[in-house]
Formats: sequence, structure tokens, C-alpha cells
Amino acid sequence: MSGEIRIIPVRGIPEIRPGDDLAALTAAALQAGGLELADGDVVVVAQKAFSKAGGHLVKLAEVTPSALASSFAELYAKDARQVEVVLREARRIVRMERGVLIVETRHGLVCANAGVDASNIEGEGAVSLLPPEPDADCEKLRSALSAAAGGVRLAVVMSDTFGRPWREGQTNIAIGVAGMDPMRSYVGQVDPYGYELRVTSLCAADELAAAAELVMGKTDAVPVAIVRGYPFTNGDQGARAIVRPPERDLFR
Amino acid sequence: MSGEIRIIPVRGIPEIRPGDDLAALTAAALQAGGLELADGDVVVVAQKAFSKAGGHLVKLAEVTPSALASSFAELYAKDARQVEVVLREARRIVRMERGVLIVETRHGLVCANAGVDASNIEGEGAVSLLPPEPDADCEKLRSALSAAAGGVRLAVVMSDTFGRPWREGQTNIAIGVAGMDPMRSYVGQVDPYGYELRVTSLCAADELAAAAELVMGKTDAVPVAIVRGYPFTNGDQGARAIVRPPERDLFR
Repeated sequence: MSGEIRIIPVRGIPEIRPGDDLAALTAAALQAGGLELADGDVVVVAQKAFSKAGGHLVKLAEVTPSALASSFAELYAKDARQVEVVLREARRIVRMERGVLIVETRHGLVCANAGVDASNIEGEGAVSLLPPEPDADCEKLRSALSAAAGGVRLAVVMSDTFGRPWREGQTNIAIGVAGMDPMRSYVGQVDPYGYELRVTSLCAADELAAAAELVMGKTDAVPVAIVRGYPFTNGDQGARAIVRPPERDLFR
Repeated sequence: MSGEIRIIPVRGIPEIRPGDDLAALTAAALQAGGLELADGDVVVVAQKAFSKAGGHLVKLAEVTPSALASSFAELYAKDARQVEVVLREARRIVRMERGVLIVETRHGLVCANAGVDASNIEGEGAVSLLPPEPDADCEKLRSALSAAAGGVRLAVVMSDTFGRPWREGQTNIAIGVAGMDPMRSYVGQVDPYGYELRVTSLCAADELAAAAELVMGKTDAVPVAIVRGYPFTNGDQGARAIVRPPERDLFR
């Protein structure tokens, strides 16, 4: 039906290791699956794939916990070295209580444990970090995938799973964006009756990340999904444009 | 491709008026569009459709603003009657500053203006309220749509557009759910290396709402979308299960 959107899982991407070429692995998996990237596709890739390929990993054995990390860890039966890594990734502590550590990362993302994660990593005693330059990573991948697909117009979204205040459960959001404006603006638009719309700016990138997660799962090896049929607007604002500036943030 | 998900807009639903039968309007639009509901479909419906059909509207001319509403309105050049309606829909004020009014509604939803909205309503001087019983509304619609479609297994999600702390733009989330567990639990599951997963509970209902919004838009008359191919788990927890209990909420 016209206007329909498809969310297509890209299966067959092997375990990713530091130095791997994500574009090449994705292209190979697409080919093996009989898929071709099409003009206007949004390629959503899980943050963990970028973290691994980029080698953004820390060996816990090489971490000496600070006093702050040690006391918090002791209180809540956590690994002090892991808490230390979280504190090092933070530029602001948002909540540090009841065993929960929510921080603002250097990117301006507010999330539990600064996105530091021990799961889904081959080998022992390492944790992954959020990639330091998610938008640049997305642009590099977008450029390579587009070139390999004959220059088609693409967007790339790096997604990660975050919790949120007041609501249970987690959802995927966009922590990196290339090739599209992450927002869809309705500023100044009116409804059929002439009233200005209440909603002025939709975060399309976050919605694309959430949609893609529906086919990704957390134990299946599906780190990449194509969202096909969404008419995104070209742009290079990146996911950094989604981060609310402090002066406009009522929750600081 | 196996595992693919489709997001299908349901066009042709006319302007909704109080007393309208949402199930009948949806069924007629499906038929006119050559669509049939299939087993396992998730039907996502915009909150505004339920608000209108249920007559959850207030005529501003009948509202006398309180002193609190009047002073806030005067400070920020707002309609005092509209501010009054918002305050009446709130069970807690979360932020009331810099012209922004974020409250917790009686459902436990935290949102700007308690979801009270002047746009997309036929006629003058009325505002719509969030439906008081979103889960019940969803179940009633689910039951009717399923019966009309030969008893197929369906879920219904009522979606609305909310802002969020720390991030610009708004996204759609689920404020009502019927027929499915709103969460997808990974508690106790391990990754391929034997580690417990960091993500323990995915809010699938919110992700379905976000995905559906990609085909809905805000000025087009597409209040209903089908998300086809997502393997939801049966359940009757409702969207009330997504509301975090106060004792677990670090942002209170």
C-alpha cells in the first residue's frame, strides 16, 4: 500500500571484532540475504556493533577504582572497576542512589551506566564503551554503504537501548545519525481547522531506532536493520542535535 | 524476508465526532483500502481519535480559571482557561516554569499540558482531554475489530506524542494497550557468552507506537496504522503496567 514502511532485519552478520569493516560485513550480509540497499533506505545499526568494530573496549583488569567507585560498589555489590569505568565516561552525575548510576555522557546522553556494558562481548573481563564520535561513525558507514550500492541516497542511525524516567522498560533511541535531519518539524504548520499544531518537532531518528529494534532483539545476532519507505529529509545535524542544550532543559 | 515487519497506514478514516464507532470506521476504511486484519496484527490508534469518539472534550467558554491558572497564563501569555483545564487533569505538578507546564496525569503519565490539546478539533473554543480509561478503550476496540475479522488475534495500542527530558523533539509512546504484554522481558537471559543481558525489559508497546507514527504524520488524516509481523506476547497488563511506581522512580 502506498506509504507503507518495511522494517527488514539484516541477518548473517558474524561476531564483530576490533578493526572489522562494518560496511563490508553489512554489504556481505545483504548480498547473502538477497537484499540490496535502495534509494531512501535508513540503515539502523546497534551501538554495540560500532563499539566492537571501533575497539571501544576496556579490560577491567587494567582499571584501578577510585574511592567513590569503590564505596558505591561495596554498598550495592557491584564490580568497582566497572563503576570506575562508568564514572570516567561521565561528564555529570544525574542519579547515584539505590544501586542505580545514571549519568550524562560526554555526548550529552543521559543513561544508566554511561552505556558501559559487559554483555555480548567475546572473551572475559572486558566492557564496551559508547563510541566517542557516533555521528562521524555513522557518516563513515553511510558513505561506504552508499558508494557500494551505486551512490543511492541513504541515512544511517546508530541505536542504543536506554531507560527513561517515569516509565518502566527501555526503548531504542538514536545516538548517532548521518544523512538525515533527525527531526521532522511542524513549526508553523496548521491543522485542518487553522490551529497551530501542538506537536512542533518529531524526533524521527528516535522513532526509526525504536522501529528497527522490533526486528533486532537482544540475543539474536541482528545488529542491523533497514527501514524502507520513510521519507526522511537530508541533513547533517547529527544526533548531537537531539541533545537538549542545558539552558532549555528543565530537568537539570 | 522472514522476520520483516510492515507498518501500514490506514487511510480514509473521516473526521471523528463524539459518539462515533471507531471499530466501524476502521473496518470501513480497511475495506475501502483493500486491507484485511491478519492474525497477530497490532493496530495502533492515535489518542486523539479516542478522545473525539469518546467525547472527551471541554468547551473553554464553560471553564472558570483558578487564581493559579490565571497568574501562570498572564506571565506567559497563555489562555487561562486552557491552563485551568490542564491543572484539573493533573494529579501532580512536575514542572511549572518558563512557560512550560509538565504534569503527571491521573493515569500516571508525565507530559506537557496533561495532553490537553486545542489542535485538530472541529469547531471553535474546545480542547480535547486524554481519555480517562485508555486500556479499557483499547480492549473495547480490540474486541470489536477481532470479532469483525473472524476472531483473529490482535493487539491495540493507543499512541500519543510526548516530549521527554534531556532530548529535543517528541516521539509517540503507548498510553493504552490491549491484547499484548507491553513489555518484552529478557530477565535471566544470557548473551552468547553466558553473561546476563544488560537490557532486561524492552517496552515493545512504546516502540510499536513510535514505529506507527512514521506513517501517521500530524497533518494527514491517518489516525490508524497496522504493524504487521511483530510477535507480541498475549497479555492484559495494559499501558498502566508501563507507569513506573513512585517507589522505583528516581525522578520524583
